Order: sequence, then structure tokens, then C-alpha cells
Amino acid sequence: MNSPRLGVVGGLGPLATVDFLDKLVRLTPATRDQDHIPWVVVGIPQTPDRTQCILRNDDAPFAHLLGAVEMLNRQQVATIAIICNTAHYWHARLQAHSQAPILHIADAAVRGLRGLAGGSRVGILSTRGTLLAGFYQQRLIDAGHGPVLPADTGAQEDVDLCIRLVKANDVAAAASCFGKAVRSCLDAGCSAVIMACTEIPIAQQAASGPLGLTAVDANLELARLCVERLYDERSLKDAGTAG
Amino acid sequence: MNSPRLGVVGGLGPLATVDFLDKLVRLTPATRDQDHIPWVVVGIPQTPDRTQCILRNDDAPFAHLLGAVEMLNRQQVATIAIICNTAHYWHARLQAHSQAPILHIADAAVRGLRGLAGGSRVGILSTRGTLLAGFYQQRLIDAGHGPVLPADTGAQEDVDLCIRLVKANDVAAAASCFGKAVRSCLDAGCSAVIMACTEIPIAQQAASGPLGLTAVDANLELARLCVERLYDERSLKDAGTAG
Repeated sequence: MNSPRLGVVGGLGPLATVDFLDKLVRLTPATRDQDHIPWVVVGIPQTPDRTQCILRNDDAPFAHLLGAVEMLNRQQVATIAIICNTAHYWHARLQAHSQAPILHIADAAVRGLRGLAGGSRVGILSTRGTLLAGFYQQRLIDAGHGPVLPADTGAQEDVDLCIRLVKANDVAAAASCFGKAVRSCLDAGCSAVIMACTEIPIAQQAASGPLGLTAVDANLELARLCVERLYDERSLKDAGTAG
Repeated sequence: MNSPRLGVVGGLGPLATVDFLDKLVRLTPATRDQDHIPWVVVGIPQTPDRTQCILRNDDAPFAHLLGAVEMLNRQQVATIAIICNTAHYWHARLQAHSQAPILHIADAAVRGLRGLAGGSRVGILSTRGTLLAGFYQQRLIDAGHGPVLPADTGAQEDVDLCIRLVKANDVAAAASCFGKAVRSCLDAGCSAVIMACTEIPIAQQAASGPLGLTAVDANLELARLCVERLYDERSLKDAGTAG
């Protein structure tokens, strides 16, 4: 019962949370149940649409996210992950109310670009809310890369539609929109894209053929970071107990 | 925020919980996040092996399961689902400590046999702990069917190995064991099997070719029952508010 627990804010949307948990379990180096990371996942799909609220300067999602973060803290989770890029608009304010550290999905995603040559152009496939928040642009610039926004290549409508179709469970149609967005990034000279909305990798999995560039899955990188953190904390705890 | 919440006891094992949540989301008639069912999922993989404990008359898993059920009740969930057939050994004792109703996975699974002719032979593919508990045998007999145990067809070892391989993430090898168990049920005159361990459908999804009989997925049927219950409760609540 003493393994550190992961707290997950999910349901934003629900399939993206399932995708995250699937990646988390498959990345965990366990061969039996008892070695896996314990979790508490709170799914809050009734949270108002994050992008719509950000674009009209409506703070309504914050109360929903804070309720989930507070509940997870009451359950004494060691670390929190929020399975929605756009919700990271409120990351710093949520962290200010959380004893448990809240990982930032963009920190995880940018780690996934480590192999890329400096000065590369990197497309950000995300909601308009995430783009407005600017945290991906800032981290790409800090890492020495050049952010490319689909709005500048005429592809933001394809990204928006891709996300909406995954939320409506129409994954095949979403894959087609994803392909269009990737081609526009290739035309703009990108050597990589960040799939910076948790719905997009679900569309990518249904897409056929090679993409022609590196596609970093923010949800996968967040799962990887969670496994590293929670296994590290377990090792440290074990070492502490042994000492 | 007022939609009734589903409480899920998971992590037993973790991939089975992911499989359940995936089925739950895909069965939910929603086209946007806000129409989905809110959940609290507590993953307790550190719970000792249920079958080993049952076979040596060790009650240790009960405290883990009860801790999860009590936590979900504190979160005021409307209904609880336990994503592990074997854990239903403790179902009645857990229900006695839970204000929220705890669905029984075997009730859900036997609903999945509704189309079957009366007096059919039905194989129970499950852990030895589930078989010892007897709740599937009892429900099949009550429904007018004849339960067939893999132990009597020499296939329980294949079922045990199938389950262990899924927990160790070796799904391809698990699929082969699943195929052997199904063939032994066919040889014993079964026209259906219940996949009565939440790991088994994961092996079935990786199996190739037609099975030659009806395979009811207890995890899928439990997800279906949850969607019906939670949507019903939502409608009733809406009606109550309207009145």
C-alpha cells in the first residue's frame, strides 16, 4: 500500500485518458500486478470546453480542475498529471493550490525532441487555447527550435476538426484531418511536429503510411515521465527504508 | 458537476482496467466531452494475488478492496464497478460496507448470454479463485444453462497461463493459450464461453480466426451495464429536477 500513487486529472476527453493509462501501463517495467504504479484517476468530462473558455476569457474550467487537484491531494498522491494540454493554461495557478507536484505536459513533450538538430522547425498541433497560452512556443524557443503554428500554414481548421472528431469517436475521419495538418507542416519546412493535444495521437494511430517527419506524442511523453518519476520515488523510498 | 459519478476499483490488473475504461467510453452515446460519464478510478495493483489468497484461505485482499470502496463512497459515487472477476469473491462483504451499489460482474456477463438456447453448455474461462467462489456456476444454472469448467477438460493450465501472460504484457503468447482453452471447451460441447477474467478479452483481441462459439466478454458486459445505469440515473435526475 506504500508505493507512491499517481494522481490523474482525466476525462478531458475520456478517450485521451484511456490512451494515457494504456501507455502508462505498457511503459511500466512490471511483470505482475503488484509491481505496477497505483493511481487515482478523476474523470471530469463536465468541465466546460477549455478552448472556448480561454478564447472568451471565461475562467470556468479552473474550478473544475481545482476540485480534481484538491481531491487528489486529499488522497495523498505523490505526483499529478493532467491529461489535457489546453488545461495547462491554468497549470501555475493549480500548482499554487497543490502540495503534490503537477507535471507539465509540455516539459514532457519537449524532452521527446532531444534527438532533433538545433534550430529545427517544429509544428505545434494543438487547440487554439493551447496556442494562445504560449507554453509550447516558449519551450521550443528555449530549446533552440523554431515553432511553426498551423494557423500560419492554413491548417488550424484541420487540427480543430481532427480533435473534435476524436472526441465524437469518429477516429477514421480524424485521421484524414491529421494527415492534412502534417502535410502543411512539411510544406512549411518542419522536421517534427508535437501532437500537443491528447486527442491527436488517437487520430495518428489510425493514419496510414509514413508521415515524413518526427511526430512527438505529448501524451506518451507524459506517461514516460510519470513512470520515471514514480519508479524513482519508489526506489528512493525503498532506499530510505533500507537505510 | 451533478452527473452521477461511476466509481471504479481497478489495477487488478492495470491493463484490464484500461480495457474496461476504453469499452465504457466507446459504449457511451456521447459526441462531446461534457456528455460522458464522470468517474473516479482507484487503481490498487498492490492488492495481493486474489486467487493465491483464496486458495490458501487468506483474507488479505479484502482490506485493500474495502479501502478502495470506502474511498469511492467518500467521493459520493453513484455506482461502483470492480474490474476483476476474482475480487467478486468478496462482493457481498464489500457491499455490506458500501452505500453505493456495487454491480456484480457475473450478473452483467450472464446478461450477455440472453440470445443462447436454454440448456446450452457454457465454459467458464476464469481464475481458480473465481471458480472456487462459484458465482458463475450458480448464475449459469439459474439461467438454465450447464456450466463447464476447464479443469474438467484439462484446460485450466492454459487459462492460468493466458491470464499470467497478459499481466506480464505478453499478449501474443496469451492469445495462443486462449485458443487452446477455447478448443477444449468446443470439444466438451460448449456453444459459448464466458471470458470471466478481465485479462482474457485482451488475449482474445490478439487471437486470429473464428472461435467457433459465442465468447461473452464479462468486462464489456460490465461496461455496458455501467453505461445503462449511469445514463438511467442521469435521466431520472434530470426528470426529478424538471418536476
